[in-house]
Amino acid sequence: MTKFGEDWKRGFRDLILEAGKKALEDSNLHGAEIDGLFAGTMAPGPLIGQEHAGALLADWMGLNPIASTRVEAACASGGVALRQGFMAVASGLHDCVVEGGVEKMTDVSGPDVVSALGGAGDQEWELFPGATFPAIYALAARRHMLDYGTTEEQMASVAVKNHLNGSKNKYAQFQSPITIETVMKSKMVASPLKVFDCSPVTDGAAALVLMPLDKARAHTDTPIEIAASAQASDTLALHDRKSLTELNATKVAAKKAYEMAKVGAKDIDIAEVHDCFTIAEVMAIEDLGFFKKGQGGPASEKGQTALNADISVNTSGGLKACGHPVGATGIKQAVEVTWQLRGQANGRQVDGAEIGLTHNVGGSGATAVVHIMKRVN
Amino acid sequence: MTKFGEDWKRGFRDLILEAGKKALEDSNLHGAEIDGLFAGTMAPGPLIGQEHAGALLADWMGLNPIASTRVEAACASGGVALRQGFMAVASGLHDCVVEGGVEKMTDVSGPDVVSALGGAGDQEWELFPGATFPAIYALAARRHMLDYGTTEEQMASVAVKNHLNGSKNKYAQFQSPITIETVMKSKMVASPLKVFDCSPVTDGAAALVLMPLDKARAHTDTPIEIAASAQASDTLALHDRKSLTELNATKVAAKKAYEMAKVGAKDIDIAEVHDCFTIAEVMAIEDLGFFKKGQGGPASEKGQTALNADISVNTSGGLKACGHPVGATGIKQAVEVTWQLRGQANGRQVDGAEIGLTHNVGGSGATAVVHIMKRVN
Repeated sequence: MTKFGEDWKRGFRDLILEAGKKALEDSNLHGAEIDGLFAGTMAPGPLIGQEHAGALLADWMGLNPIASTRVEAACASGGVALRQGFMAVASGLHDCVVEGGVEKMTDVSGPDVVSALGGAGDQEWELFPGATFPAIYALAARRHMLDYGTTEEQMASVAVKNHLNGSKNKYAQFQSPITIETVMKSKMVASPLKVFDCSPVTDGAAALVLMPLDKARAHTDTPIEIAASAQASDTLALHDRKSLTELNATKVAAKKAYEMAKVGAKDIDIAEVHDCFTIAEVMAIEDLGFFKKGQGGPASEKGQTALNADISVNTSGGLKACGHPVGATGIKQAVEVTWQLRGQANGRQVDGAEIGLTHNVGGSGATAVVHIMKRVN
Repeated sequence: MTKFGEDWKRGFRDLILEAGKKALEDSNLHGAEIDGLFAGTMAPGPLIGQEHAGALLADWMGLNPIASTRVEAACASGGVALRQGFMAVASGLHDCVVEGGVEKMTDVSGPDVVSALGGAGDQEWELFPGATFPAIYALAARRHMLDYGTTEEQMASVAVKNHLNGSKNKYAQFQSPITIETVMKSKMVASPLKVFDCSPVTDGAAALVLMPLDKARAHTDTPIEIAASAQASDTLALHDRKSLTELNATKVAAKKAYEMAKVGAKDIDIAEVHDCFTIAEVMAIEDLGFFKKGQGGPASEKGQTALNADISVNTSGGLKACGHPVGATGIKQAVEVTWQLRGQANGRQVDGAEIGLTHNVGGSGATAVVHIMKRVN
């Protein structure tokens, strides 16, 4: 992956090129061995005036004439691209694919970014009438506070933990630890969410290589197996859902993933979950079955999701501190889990991590993708 | 599919809903049997301010919580979506998927459509400096004329043939036959391409259902087999290519598809090829191996690609006359071939059609997808 952040000097093409090159080097792979490419990117149309990003990536990576496909599912674009590559290899039509995720967000104005990101929700029912994403997640937070007694301090503890993890990750956008007070005193965005409850606008790219396990063993001593890949959907707009405090798509995808991998929530050592807002991580660790519904806030506050605690959540720093270049996030999650399972997460390594989970959400939960990854010996 | 055209009364959601409903009815299928959805749509961001179209479609078709994924490859979005669904079923992760293609193009101004479509090419090297798609294909046409003696009348004959086919297709945008004179006297867009050499701006949607063949037999007496699915890429910008008069991605994808289906170009009875401009059909019938390089123009002029001639090309009317709602086109091509292979192409039926081919191109050829479909008895 590239260093995430506000990258004023490089464009979309430079970012994906760096990530792709690193992935190939890490895999001891020559470009000629690659027969497919999947690109997760949410909004290059509104953000850089460019569609057809699959072809663009193959072109700039010098991989023509391989099949190259862009996949989009808003903030879950990376996770969904990963799943397409997994199916492509499983189908037998491809044997070695590169998965790239990328977003270049800082080339347009703030309002233009808000407008582009609004496309992840139901524009006609939400953004056009004025509901931006912080407002949508604020509704979830308020309801979670009402139903379960979750506090603003508990949500803030998610940000504190993720900034601490990010400070140990050289690829993270934010490198400084913060305190509960930092969050509580930060500017209000959409009550009760303050600016430190929100993930940032980020430029960045991430990439990885997928191939059949037997083939992977020839390229690395530490192949990581994708034991499950599951995806689910929900209504695009919030108003049609039964609950504001859970994401049904996460629950459905998680259930399928656990069945496919033949593991349970209790078996997961590390998880990269979709913390676009602090309340999103609280809901995620509940919906994924790590904690009972309503216990996500207290569990975070007690440190149960910290590095080497009950379950290590968002060791990369998460979207919150590592940054959220939308299409890259789902791939970055898998990159972080790979490093952790290989024992290569310098400075933030979870002891003896054997099984990891990634959880990538599109919009306010209309898409959720869950992957379970295992170290193979 | 929906009736293609300028549909002022209906939006993106209405169009895909109608196409999806028709596909389910045609397949004698209940929504509960569907476990996946793939949506081909090129530019809903710039055109209707909405991304996350996979989730939107599942939502409006009432199919939550199934996995639903948007795929984008510019004008080849539909064809690439079809290939993702094919791989999803082949992988065993899905058993019954709906493929939907849709574009709603007439809700924005003409310049905004040009800008959105420009995203199919290399914006930084082409559209931003002024090269729109008619200009790009005009370069190909000029070079084809120089190298092979192709004439403007030969290109015009493609439009005449496709408008005649379109006049026999109730779903086509244009319902009137035209003459060579109509084309030759029409307004110049980018010399030598006149307005009747160009496909129109269109609203429309198309959908179909994919499942394993043994399962399909339980739903219909006339299942159609996808015998091959192949995709290739090329440089996004024209200036890096070896030739202006052929699309290498088409040639690579076609070669793979013929190998996979174990057939040759001579075995194809009907083909829906990507005639975004008349010169594009001339190049396509050469690159797909139906005619020798340079013979596409004369073959078209002699009527060798007309209904029930040597090979029946673009029986639907093609992009030229049936219309080109960008993301829908690749799916529509497969719908037309399905109807032809089933003997249901009322008024334009090709006698004894057994093997059909679809050819969908993104941009000026940076993506090409070829499918070969067979009637199974």
